[in-house]
Amino acid sequence: MASITNVSCNKMFGGLQKVFSHDSKELGCKMKFAIFLPPQSEQDKVPVIYWLSGLECTEANCVQKSGIQKYAAEHGVIIVCPDTSPRGLNLPGEKDSWDFGEGAGFYVDATEKPWNKNYKMYSYVTRELIDVINKNFPVIEGKQSIMGHSMGGHGALICALKNPGLYKSVSAFAPICNPSECPWGKKAFEGYLGAFENGTWSQWDATELVKTYDGQPIELFLDQGAADNFMHQLLPEHLIKACKDANIPAILKMREGYDHSYYYIATFIGEHVAYHAQHLTN
Amino acid sequence: MASITNVSCNKMFGGLQKVFSHDSKELGCKMKFAIFLPPQSEQDKVPVIYWLSGLECTEANCVQKSGIQKYAAEHGVIIVCPDTSPRGLNLPGEKDSWDFGEGAGFYVDATEKPWNKNYKMYSYVTRELIDVINKNFPVIEGKQSIMGHSMGGHGALICALKNPGLYKSVSAFAPICNPSECPWGKKAFEGYLGAFENGTWSQWDATELVKTYDGQPIELFLDQGAADNFMHQLLPEHLIKACKDANIPAILKMREGYDHSYYYIATFIGEHVAYHAQHLTN
Repeated sequence: MASITNVSCNKMFGGLQKVFSHDSKELGCKMKFAIFLPPQSEQDKVPVIYWLSGLECTEANCVQKSGIQKYAAEHGVIIVCPDTSPRGLNLPGEKDSWDFGEGAGFYVDATEKPWNKNYKMYSYVTRELIDVINKNFPVIEGKQSIMGHSMGGHGALICALKNPGLYKSVSAFAPICNPSECPWGKKAFEGYLGAFENGTWSQWDATELVKTYDGQPIELFLDQGAADNFMHQLLPEHLIKACKDANIPAILKMREGYDHSYYYIATFIGEHVAYHAQHLTN
Repeated sequence: MASITNVSCNKMFGGLQKVFSHDSKELGCKMKFAIFLPPQSEQDKVPVIYWLSGLECTEANCVQKSGIQKYAAEHGVIIVCPDTSPRGLNLPGEKDSWDFGEGAGFYVDATEKPWNKNYKMYSYVTRELIDVINKNFPVIEGKQSIMGHSMGGHGALICALKNPGLYKSVSAFAPICNPSECPWGKKAFEGYLGAFENGTWSQWDATELVKTYDGQPIELFLDQGAADNFMHQLLPEHLIKACKDANIPAILKMREGYDHSYYYIATFIGEHVAYHAQHLTN
């Protein structure tokens, strides 16, 4: 287990908002993650919620803009925010697009060159990062949930659907629900996974994963701003239909007038933390 | 009255977080300000709280990082956040320092060239901006309070102390309490107001203004992180002593372990909004 290095520490809502860096084996580069330690974690082990951010984000966006720490302190849960891709690799084309490469890892394990050596955000989030957190912080092992926004909402959904029971609950703000069918998803999947005809896209697409899910009971908590300009990228109706067909319970909260921004997330993230806390303390 | 132009609008906590630009007469340039309109303002006129930001900030920092909108929606108050200096003037030396010139207007009316034509943030905040807000938004005229952070805490204090009765209440996070005596303040005052020997600094220094205050009763609500690295710039003990000597009531909340950041502000801004709301609805 590589060591972790504390980059910053700020007191907030009685707890500590910290950032750490570490050398990731899965990704082959130095990565940063943010962690909020609620006041309860000074005395006891507590549950943890993982937050996956969207395109162009780093570990900082949720920390600075969502206000999640207030609710984490109220419920006594740790919040972990990883970065959204490997960093500093200087792979060819890595910085050419805002929606592919750096800042846009899409939480898959890439199979195509030159991405397949480092772009393994799925393995990083579901294995290496959990190990790092469990070994270095006062968490109750196994008491973890996952949530995210946009690309990170897609990430949260596939991490939960591909690993029945690993997370006690899953929720997503404005997730990319069916990446195989939208421009952002197609671009990312072609780049990281190769042509659609390879047949592997469905392993990384929440709408497709729902159709074949046969693990323990799972509920999807989906949140969507009704005034979101990216609805053609998100396609919540595809995922809702797949859930209905597969008899997987899905809660969809449509928020009238809300868009795709952190202003929307900040408004409702307290509801999500409460939802996860309920599952994590049962 | 010059017109205002809507730059952005995002729904948040049931209200609307908007940004406007307008041509400022006092400052001789285009300025932006942010305004949060709580849901209550759709039906009725409501009170307003002005927020003044610190060094290097714009109208965006408080909006994105403080979480103030949640509390403004609960209490039914408008929040107005102006920028921290004139913008885009290209005066000589304007961008040479992070703590002087652009982003560092210090809420004074400059008397020294080349600043004296445009750097009139005091007149902008206490007159022009109030006019713009009163004429364009559903505010109860006269029901206004003011608060700020660091340089903006200094600004809030001097705006209130120089205008007895204009604001129903005033509060400050980690304010520069005695700018005549600290490095940031001396640099700014020498640049904008000329040499200390001119004798005008005391008109723009909260600690000095308290000594000569003879308006209607006023209370200062001061908030300070005990782990703030900038204590030598802030000098809260100078202001507290001046308040004691002058029999001006001051509340000083020292926050153990908190620093100078927006993480600290976010933790306690709800208390400040509640404090102002109480004064604004009496």
